[in-house]
Amino acid sequence: MVVYGKKVVHELLRSNHPVEQIIIARESDKQLIRQIKFFADRRGLQVTFANKRDVQKYCGPVLHQGVAAILTRYLYLTEEALTIKLQDERYPFILILDQIQDPHNLGAIIRSAEISGVHALILPRKGSSDITPTVAKTSAGAVFHLPIYYCDDIFSTLYLIKNKAIELIGLHPGGEQTIYQTDMRRALALIIGSEGKGIRKNVRNLCDYLVTIPQKGKVNSLNASVAAAVTLYEILRQRSFA
Amino acid sequence: MVVYGKKVVHELLRSNHPVEQIIIARESDKQLIRQIKFFADRRGLQVTFANKRDVQKYCGPVLHQGVAAILTRYLYLTEEALTIKLQDERYPFILILDQIQDPHNLGAIIRSAEISGVHALILPRKGSSDITPTVAKTSAGAVFHLPIYYCDDIFSTLYLIKNKAIELIGLHPGGEQTIYQTDMRRALALIIGSEGKGIRKNVRNLCDYLVTIPQKGKVNSLNASVAAAVTLYEILRQRSFA
Repeated sequence: MVVYGKKVVHELLRSNHPVEQIIIARESDKQLIRQIKFFADRRGLQVTFANKRDVQKYCGPVLHQGVAAILTRYLYLTEEALTIKLQDERYPFILILDQIQDPHNLGAIIRSAEISGVHALILPRKGSSDITPTVAKTSAGAVFHLPIYYCDDIFSTLYLIKNKAIELIGLHPGGEQTIYQTDMRRALALIIGSEGKGIRKNVRNLCDYLVTIPQKGKVNSLNASVAAAVTLYEILRQRSFA
Repeated sequence: MVVYGKKVVHELLRSNHPVEQIIIARESDKQLIRQIKFFADRRGLQVTFANKRDVQKYCGPVLHQGVAAILTRYLYLTEEALTIKLQDERYPFILILDQIQDPHNLGAIIRSAEISGVHALILPRKGSSDITPTVAKTSAGAVFHLPIYYCDDIFSTLYLIKNKAIELIGLHPGGEQTIYQTDMRRALALIIGSEGKGIRKNVRNLCDYLVTIPQKGKVNSLNASVAAAVTLYEILRQRSFA
């Protein structure tokens, strides 16, 4: 996978994901080159210089900002590592996205999740976007810091979570209580569905409770990634500032 | 101005903005046609049927979803109407965006602002995006419900606000306190800058205080429209749920 953009490559180099090659456009500003070289050196990586057009060849028709990197492979979280994480964190804070296919939405949510302190993201392999270069870009590189687990069977994963006494909270427009009336200072996994369809019914049925974001005005439908961020931040607020 | 998309035209028809013409693609599904006709009838407006390709001609290369409308003119909030609003609301909740040029960011913030109960949006004419069809689309039509005032001189508007004993709160990464430590259950105007540059220094200097969103993780930079939504929702929470 070829990822591109200053911030994305910067975050990749600060992460543990194995990198095969870094490509910088010769025309780039010196500060960018110096910065990328610094992080590349720390990891013992060679930097390849190329013409802007050649960088474009690697990335395709995107705004690459003069820098790209070839990822050897993306290190997904395994089920074993997830299980250990659930045990090790005192109050696990898990995010589950139920079939989000739009890479921009997925990337935007990953960015907010990493910043609001989510411990791990769980995605059902079926119906979810892969980690693509677009997801990496939209996440501003957060995709390289947030542990992500793709599960083959979302239901067995949900039962694994429930068995650890972690509450499942679904964000759902018809939820019986607002996020502000819900005590989220405990071990929890927040489930969010796709913009069009919401959480699938059989996933929703496994939730301990369904919560909603109060809305004023007339338009009455928050953007999916905004709704995710508002809820994730309310959890952060309750845990750290309430 | 030609706006397009189901939700956008729907919200336009529910608003007070004068409409010249509504165009629907003949191939559209019956439910959409019925719904648009219902709202058009209520306003005594004719609906024009056209081929999908002809709708495209009106809108340009965008996803129009089979429906477009020609706006006679967008009704901006005047300075007089803003002044009355500041007097009439018990605890005014104003949003000021300092030079946001990206229409997607502007539209996304307008959507969140309308839903979180903002009374009016103020934009400096210089350096701000206009209300374009893209802004209307990204706002999901919220642009037709949120009163918007473009001011020629941001500083005289800021003094107008200060003179009404409305506090100016700037959202700024270097802010001295978090949004969670700040009591926002009072008359206030929240100021947010552009993603790259933040609030201009001479605008920032007029703020009563600067607030920040606490961040965990490594990436450490929220998307502009997400940061706006998290702050707007914290204000809503404090006013309605604290």
